[in-house]
Amino acid sequence: MAPIVYKYSCILFSLVILHSLSQFAHSRTYNEKKPCKRFVLYYHDILYNGTDAANATSAATTKPTKLGNFTHGMLVVFDDPMTKDHHLLSPPVARAQGFYFYDMKTQYNAWFSFTLVFNSTEHKGTINIMGADMMREETRDLSVVGGTGDFFMARGICTIRTDTLQGDFYFRLQMDIKFYECY
Amino acid sequence: MAPIVYKYSCILFSLVILHSLSQFAHSRTYNEKKPCKRFVLYYHDILYNGTDAANATSAATTKPTKLGNFTHGMLVVFDDPMTKDHHLLSPPVARAQGFYFYDMKTQYNAWFSFTLVFNSTEHKGTINIMGADMMREETRDLSVVGGTGDFFMARGICTIRTDTLQGDFYFRLQMDIKFYECY
Amino acid sequence: MAPIVYKYSCILFSLVILHSLSQFAHSRTYNEKKPCKRFVLYYHDILYNGTDAANATSAATTKPTKLGNFTHGMLVVFDDPMTKDHHLLSPPVARAQGFYFYDMKTQYNAWFSFTLVFNSTEHKGTINIMGADMMREETRDLSVVGGTGDFFMARGICTIRTDTLQGDFYFRLQMDIKFYECY
Repeated sequence: MAPIVYKYSCILFSLVILHSLSQFAHSRTYNEKKPCKRFVLYYHDILYNGTDAANATSAATTKPTKLGNFTHGMLVVFDDPMTKDHHLLSPPVARAQGFYFYDMKTQYNAWFSFTLVFNSTEHKGTINIMGADMMREETRDLSVVGGTGDFFMARGICTIRTDTLQGDFYFRLQMDIKFYECY
Repeated sequence: MAPIVYKYSCILFSLVILHSLSQFAHSRTYNEKKPCKRFVLYYHDILYNGTDAANATSAATTKPTKLGNFTHGMLVVFDDPMTKDHHLLSPPVARAQGFYFYDMKTQYNAWFSFTLVFNSTEHKGTINIMGADMMREETRDLSVVGGTGDFFMARGICTIRTDTLQGDFYFRLQMDIKFYECY
Repeated sequence: MAPIVYKYSCILFSLVILHSLSQFAHSRTYNEKKPCKRFVLYYHDILYNGTDAANATSAATTKPTKLGNFTHGMLVVFDDPMTKDHHLLSPPVARAQGFYFYDMKTQYNAWFSFTLVFNSTEHKGTINIMGADMMREETRDLSVVGGTGDFFMARGICTIRTDTLQGDFYFRLQMDIKFYECY
């Protein structure tokens, strides 16, 4: 009798595991502090001021609306350099291609959607990002909604921080890109 | 001999489970009727008509193109209040920040991309949503493509329904937000 | 003593499996060459030239900025037909509703965000897609970030290829849509 008891307890235990695993599959738990991949890059937006086409990498394609005094509705299309450190003139490791616009009438506040395009020996592929840029917050979280190539099917969070603002035509964001789904 | 048989049958059975689990991981099944989180909110779009900047929360940043008679190409940037009930003047529980535009030449039809921004004691975080608004349909499904904060890594469906239309400058959508991936 | 050893080795082995499974849940592996669903469609963009409103299905809603000579900042809103073969006049199986804009000052380069809307006996539902269109590349990968209806909660990759370019007002893209998460 005894061995049969062990056998069934083994099967039972296995079924418990099977069940707990199907639960796992539905509610994967991520540790926000432990992304499976992470890197920090700097985004440089050099807005066209009407004369510096040689340096500019973005330009407003709509004028602000008349709703408030914070350039509501101004939409900027960019192909901006991404660097590993703060320096604008460091060799770019990726391009950020996409757009942002200002969306509030009572303060500066923006919304972004863009793709990070990597095409180097280190990385080939793209990362797609979107979300609100609550500019008054110290840090803001955007969603990494997809990726291709080296970042195939990636998902995660891109935490941005305003690193510097120089007048109306240059700003730099630190982008802390954390993946929680890596393949 | 007998105990060894049990031992191996146990290992074999475990391997079967292991294999079936790796299958699970590839084809998680969701029950559309059983989201892991759900809430219904109302979106109020008060379009700037040129004079009511005090009340308006959105404004068109491009003029319609000349393709058809349904404001094709008109792009509206918004920072709209989200409330728990139908009333425009109820305390907002979130802001919807993003844009929509009209995209058909033969009828009114729109496309949305926006972020729900929560910043209350109840919820802190954002939900990112995009999709087509086939305005002639009773309900339309948009994709919840990501989230941050309390909605960390969320995915799901946002079903919208036109709750009311008042002239050219106010409409209200019911948004039924269903998450199928909760963390 | 012996049966107890087997019993514990069984439990131990099960725990090892349990642990390895929780790993699985965090790093699901996809085979890029084996999507769980796949189809190829053709996207036809017939840009409004100011006179052919009868045929056009898209129109520019912003003028190019003055940054470079490659229509930087021109934003096009579309409701374009999707067909199963190359022919523009084949019966559309879906509509592509969304927008693209040009974003580089030194060459033609675009960025897309759109929804494929299916409403036939074969398929009902939507697929949401976004990403960079590096037009100089033979093929470019966009992200499928979500889906609804028959494509409920889908994710994947949409590989595009320029199939033909006819002057300034018509181009056709082949879209190879591969899902890696199917429900």
